[in-house]
Amino acid sequence: MSKNIRPEGTLLYAQSGGVTAVINVTAAAVITEARSRGVRVMAGRHGILGVLNDDLIDTTALSKSEVRTMAHTPGGAFGSCRVKLKSLEEDRAKYERLLDTFRKHDVRWFLYNGGNDSADTALKVSQLAAEFDYPLTCIGVPKTVDNDLAVTDCCPGFGSAAKYTAISVRECALDVAAMASTSTKVFVYEAMGRHAGWLAAAAGLAGRGEDEAPHLILFPERVFDEADFLARVDAVVSRVGYCVVVASEGIRDASGKFIADAGGGRDAFGHTQLGGVASHLAARVHDRLGHKVHWALPDYLQRSARHLASETDFEHARAVGRKAVQFALKGMNATMPVIKRISDQPYRWRIEAAALADIANREKTLPADFIRADGHGISEAARRYLQPLIRGEAYPPYGRDGLPKYLPPQATP
Amino acid sequence: MSKNIRPEGTLLYAQSGGVTAVINVTAAAVITEARSRGVRVMAGRHGILGVLNDDLIDTTALSKSEVRTMAHTPGGAFGSCRVKLKSLEEDRAKYERLLDTFRKHDVRWFLYNGGNDSADTALKVSQLAAEFDYPLTCIGVPKTVDNDLAVTDCCPGFGSAAKYTAISVRECALDVAAMASTSTKVFVYEAMGRHAGWLAAAAGLAGRGEDEAPHLILFPERVFDEADFLARVDAVVSRVGYCVVVASEGIRDASGKFIADAGGGRDAFGHTQLGGVASHLAARVHDRLGHKVHWALPDYLQRSARHLASETDFEHARAVGRKAVQFALKGMNATMPVIKRISDQPYRWRIEAAALADIANREKTLPADFIRADGHGISEAARRYLQPLIRGEAYPPYGRDGLPKYLPPQATP
Repeated sequence: MSKNIRPEGTLLYAQSGGVTAVINVTAAAVITEARSRGVRVMAGRHGILGVLNDDLIDTTALSKSEVRTMAHTPGGAFGSCRVKLKSLEEDRAKYERLLDTFRKHDVRWFLYNGGNDSADTALKVSQLAAEFDYPLTCIGVPKTVDNDLAVTDCCPGFGSAAKYTAISVRECALDVAAMASTSTKVFVYEAMGRHAGWLAAAAGLAGRGEDEAPHLILFPERVFDEADFLARVDAVVSRVGYCVVVASEGIRDASGKFIADAGGGRDAFGHTQLGGVASHLAARVHDRLGHKVHWALPDYLQRSARHLASETDFEHARAVGRKAVQFALKGMNATMPVIKRISDQPYRWRIEAAALADIANREKTLPADFIRADGHGISEAARRYLQPLIRGEAYPPYGRDGLPKYLPPQATP
Repeated sequence: MSKNIRPEGTLLYAQSGGVTAVINVTAAAVITEARSRGVRVMAGRHGILGVLNDDLIDTTALSKSEVRTMAHTPGGAFGSCRVKLKSLEEDRAKYERLLDTFRKHDVRWFLYNGGNDSADTALKVSQLAAEFDYPLTCIGVPKTVDNDLAVTDCCPGFGSAAKYTAISVRECALDVAAMASTSTKVFVYEAMGRHAGWLAAAAGLAGRGEDEAPHLILFPERVFDEADFLARVDAVVSRVGYCVVVASEGIRDASGKFIADAGGGRDAFGHTQLGGVASHLAARVHDRLGHKVHWALPDYLQRSARHLASETDFEHARAVGRKAVQFALKGMNATMPVIKRISDQPYRWRIEAAALADIANREKTLPADFIRADGHGISEAARRYLQPLIRGEAYPPYGRDGLPKYLPPQATP
């Protein structure tokens, strides 16, 4: 498509699901690419909710410098949401409201930036448009720290969270190593990943071999056995002097029960107890082994750590944003730009188009051969896969006040 | 002292107490400065324990490049410890063992790098040496993320932890802001500081005014009142749409009881429950207000985040290391190089000598006028004090693997 012919209509972009350190890199790339082609971009405030409620943000009000700053800002610049639309039959009224908003703003291209659920939504919206003979091109744009999208080699957002995880674990391991002789001997780090152990696996990049931290990784893909866990921790403490454990939030026992729920969800006074996995494991180590123990729960910090974004991840996030606009303008309906790995070393990749139907509602778990034979570390195959994703530092610019120059949450018009 | 005359004897350096992101900057500066003056440096393995057990590390084995890398590595390169010596009378046998080690290695200068307790130990060792007519110069070298040392304007280690805190809170606030319409509305971040709210105060740099995160800071210097807290959280959620809380681990109720112990220390099954402050507050918000809530406990991550070290902090840590050697060689016994602030803006400072007797066992809490009138934020005076300490980015070098080039724990000889 020539840049000289201004395509008519509006491109609607919206963010969905848990945000990442680099989803705004994608947002900024969408705006920049569309502008270069003379296409107006509107954004849904809080994802599909903004489309349902006709609450759109006109991005033409954003200056070039604001768009650049957006690409350095974590969180979701236009607001995200956790909303899953049901089938066309069940949620017909809602789908018709979407269509009303599309008509009102002459939306010709709809880009939905999210995970599995969002790919499903984008697919359903494309079906709805076809049913009503409304001319719309729907594109899913990948994003999730969970790295669980099908087809794509990896998901923008994951690489930065993986880098944060590997570095944080290496850093706290150095702390524990220094203190272990008279203080903390066991440290438990809780990584995100309810269903798939991608981030827990990334922690494995912090060290190599059984004597380097993390000494034990607990994957949700493996059954958690407390007795075995405690025996391993004790053996590492005896051998190395201390033990760093990385636990995925989603680990479960043989009956399928989440370990995070093991405390019964209540404290001694009957109040809700929101313990999590790390605090539970730490307490068991304390009670059963008697070692001094500490634990960390970085929670949202791990997915919003823009200060530690991976350059590879940044490049991926930008590329999918650009390509999504190109796919849209070419009318490649119901597709998603995905990352295709060409080689590990040197790391080479390109963007390809994939059908949303092959991605929607599927989930990619950690391949079995990414887990070391003993079940508590990562294999060389996992290292080859993970290493390039955390490579390079895409630092945000800092102000004289020592803080990154982020767009404040109220900056979007 | 001329560089041409090689002083006879050994300089003994040891690390003590909780480690920081930059204590090894000080260690590297001590080694480099001493080398430049022809003085041999030995280091106690695990602080004073290494001296008690005659377990010293000869740093002459470290290459120039290893010393440089040490300055980029968090944790304590020679191992730290939590050991407090009692009075000369009570612990006489131990003090005599220290003296044996000093004699054996011809130690003429003893540099102890730590907080209040370590200043006390250095002072006692100097008294012991005087009693036994052993020629020794003892120097305390400041370090602590708690920033609670007397006399010095601030403590090396604090600035980097403060920077980590402010940036992490700003980042997770952007995450919550994006998600609040359909997901998490309240986020609780737990900051270190059992007795003094310095790190909680540093979080205040993340925003300005009552509508910017952090919306509520809970200081250990103020009594925690649950009903008031919940009312404030709810008011912020109504007004802003979400609420970011920073809680110091040391907050207590009117009876003086730590809130961290409020769960009774047991779960519903009678097992130890190591909840902490953030998880307790989160549970109360969930039970009483019904908002979706998340929380983070960065624990050691906040004091070992060398990847986010402040340049000011780095410079302080290096300067106290250099000056400690200079003070030692000048025979300035029982002193500590401290940071003296000359001006806030532009930030200017210098190193002065202070008497260990004025520092040992004292504790500097947050000045009352650093807390905003409403008790839940920081004042302009606090900003003026804190801002320069987080200024500048002293990034470690990174490898092609996407990880900082840190000295591994086993690297020290």
